[in-house]
Amino acid sequence: MNDPLTYKDAGVDLDAADRAKRSFAALLDASGDTNTLSGLGAFGGLYAVPEGLAQPVLVASADGVGTKLKLAFLSGRHDTVGRDLVNHCVNDILVQGAVPLFFLDYLATGQLDEGVAAQVVGGVSGACRENRCALLGGETAEMPDFYGEGEYDLAGFVVGVVERDRILDGSAVRPGDRLVAIRSSGLHTNGFTLARTIVFERMGLTVDDPFPGESASVADVLLRVHRSYLGSVRPLLDEGAIRAMAHVTGSGIQGNLPRVLPEGLGARIDCDSWTVPNVFRQLGRAGGVEPGEMFRVFNMGVGMILVVAPDREASVLAALGDEAWPLGEVVRGAGVELAGVESVG
Amino acid sequence: MNDPLTYKDAGVDLDAADRAKRSFAALLDASGDTNTLSGLGAFGGLYAVPEGLAQPVLVASADGVGTKLKLAFLSGRHDTVGRDLVNHCVNDILVQGAVPLFFLDYLATGQLDEGVAAQVVGGVSGACRENRCALLGGETAEMPDFYGEGEYDLAGFVVGVVERDRILDGSAVRPGDRLVAIRSSGLHTNGFTLARTIVFERMGLTVDDPFPGESASVADVLLRVHRSYLGSVRPLLDEGAIRAMAHVTGSGIQGNLPRVLPEGLGARIDCDSWTVPNVFRQLGRAGGVEPGEMFRVFNMGVGMILVVAPDREASVLAALGDEAWPLGEVVRGAGVELAGVESVG
Repeated sequence: MNDPLTYKDAGVDLDAADRAKRSFAALLDASGDTNTLSGLGAFGGLYAVPEGLAQPVLVASADGVGTKLKLAFLSGRHDTVGRDLVNHCVNDILVQGAVPLFFLDYLATGQLDEGVAAQVVGGVSGACRENRCALLGGETAEMPDFYGEGEYDLAGFVVGVVERDRILDGSAVRPGDRLVAIRSSGLHTNGFTLARTIVFERMGLTVDDPFPGESASVADVLLRVHRSYLGSVRPLLDEGAIRAMAHVTGSGIQGNLPRVLPEGLGARIDCDSWTVPNVFRQLGRAGGVEPGEMFRVFNMGVGMILVVAPDREASVLAALGDEAWPLGEVVRGAGVELAGVESVG
Repeated sequence: MNDPLTYKDAGVDLDAADRAKRSFAALLDASGDTNTLSGLGAFGGLYAVPEGLAQPVLVASADGVGTKLKLAFLSGRHDTVGRDLVNHCVNDILVQGAVPLFFLDYLATGQLDEGVAAQVVGGVSGACRENRCALLGGETAEMPDFYGEGEYDLAGFVVGVVERDRILDGSAVRPGDRLVAIRSSGLHTNGFTLARTIVFERMGLTVDDPFPGESASVADVLLRVHRSYLGSVRPLLDEGAIRAMAHVTGSGIQGNLPRVLPEGLGARIDCDSWTVPNVFRQLGRAGGVEPGEMFRVFNMGVGMILVVAPDREASVLAALGDEAWPLGEVVRGAGVELAGVESVG
């Protein structure tokens, strides 16, 4: 047992890591813009602060994909989770009025599979292009003994910019303001630990089975990409139509809407204002999950909530089309009342 | 088996996550500065672009701690890895001439232990203060079935700023320029998969045993914090004394120095210009690792390399004191020659 040791013997293949990094170079190049001043290989990514802003404020957010990744592992589809990640991050800064400038990712795995890594980073890169956001860099970590075979974790970090006097911080919100919901595309990236328990243990399904009540498979339904609201919302931001915005992620409407309401104000949600999508109804039924708990864990079909002045509601709804609806209103008090929640299901 | 399910049954405790997040609020507040415009609870962190710069360029980097985390798990010490992470990221943007503005962390674990999370984030926060960098936000993810019991992964993202005409991109480097080494504090955050194999399997040691040739324990030696070079290097940057800089991380001097040298230039490292610290000599000997491989995996005592004009070398060395020494020079050609490497050990 005294053979000479190498790093590769210990489980880390620097050559494979180098190859993977080089294969990402094209993805980085393709997703840059004129403010991107660095290429791959630089220690840090360089991005010029955009000109023409009087008082630019940077808005930054970090996030992960969470256990939705397990669906990617089970189905062998690694090209969607990067999109989930970028879109989630973009939405998180959008709610403060910011548009994204650049993104960095962190991909950690036990043993680097170059094909899987290329699919994951390809998804990140594609979503960066869609959101007109530069993929400025990232880190690929090979960590033996940390991750199960074929598994990885994926986190990301976005930086955007907003004019200081256009920051949405909730201070403009008044009682009587209207809440406008924009549809989610599915579970987005939240509640997957509970969803997996219900689908695989209670329902006894596999990823290839049809999802109850749908023609799509379990994998198709659960991997639906967390959508970006940038394209829909940006024109409304530009015209100053929005007083506040909440991205419905972990802890649901009740957990996220109060984050953007001023002290002394709460919200009433009309739970009969939309039909909760099939995926949530099936999960709730098969898991026997109480409606209140469902709303705490899942977005229930409401991906983004806009707070608008009453006289703006009609034009905002018209601009958004059939992906949006009147959800409720801002009221005096605190917290979120889910009016009619008991009849959801 | 049809009891009503909750999120907590499935393994995610939203209440514990909320408590942990609130406990981080004080850490974020304490590490902000006058450009930090947001508190905890905001979707994204807000940071005003500093005024007084003609052409501000943002420099961003993502990194993880790697398998050094296993030492934290084994020893139950969780207050140093956050420092490793912040300092590593700060060094990565420093080499391009940037000073840090703000930092975000990503902490992922199977089941959130509030005490451990507070130690980890406390380390992050402390190092942010030391580097005068705002801790602007972060994500704490609870991912059952992803991480072993008591284990977690930790990644971070830094954003700094540099004047466009002060970016260090290597273009100023000339043949004959001098290389100045600045000492590392230990293994920093690289080579831990190999180091752990040698220490625990070849040497048969535990974290509490004395490390060979030192009075400190294995945990003390291996967990020594990856140091930040910001304080030492910033005055030299301000006076324009540095033409390029390389942070010696994964893949060593040979992998990192060429990243900042222009096409057609290489470097000669005088391997007899310093005594390789005990920790590396012990690892190399016990593992029977070839010297060339040792230099590819570990920093070997050289944490940062400055490239300076010949007439600046003496003043730079004087300013840095006994933590620095003349390491070699820039030569025509390509790659890094480790002159005298065969006699290291």
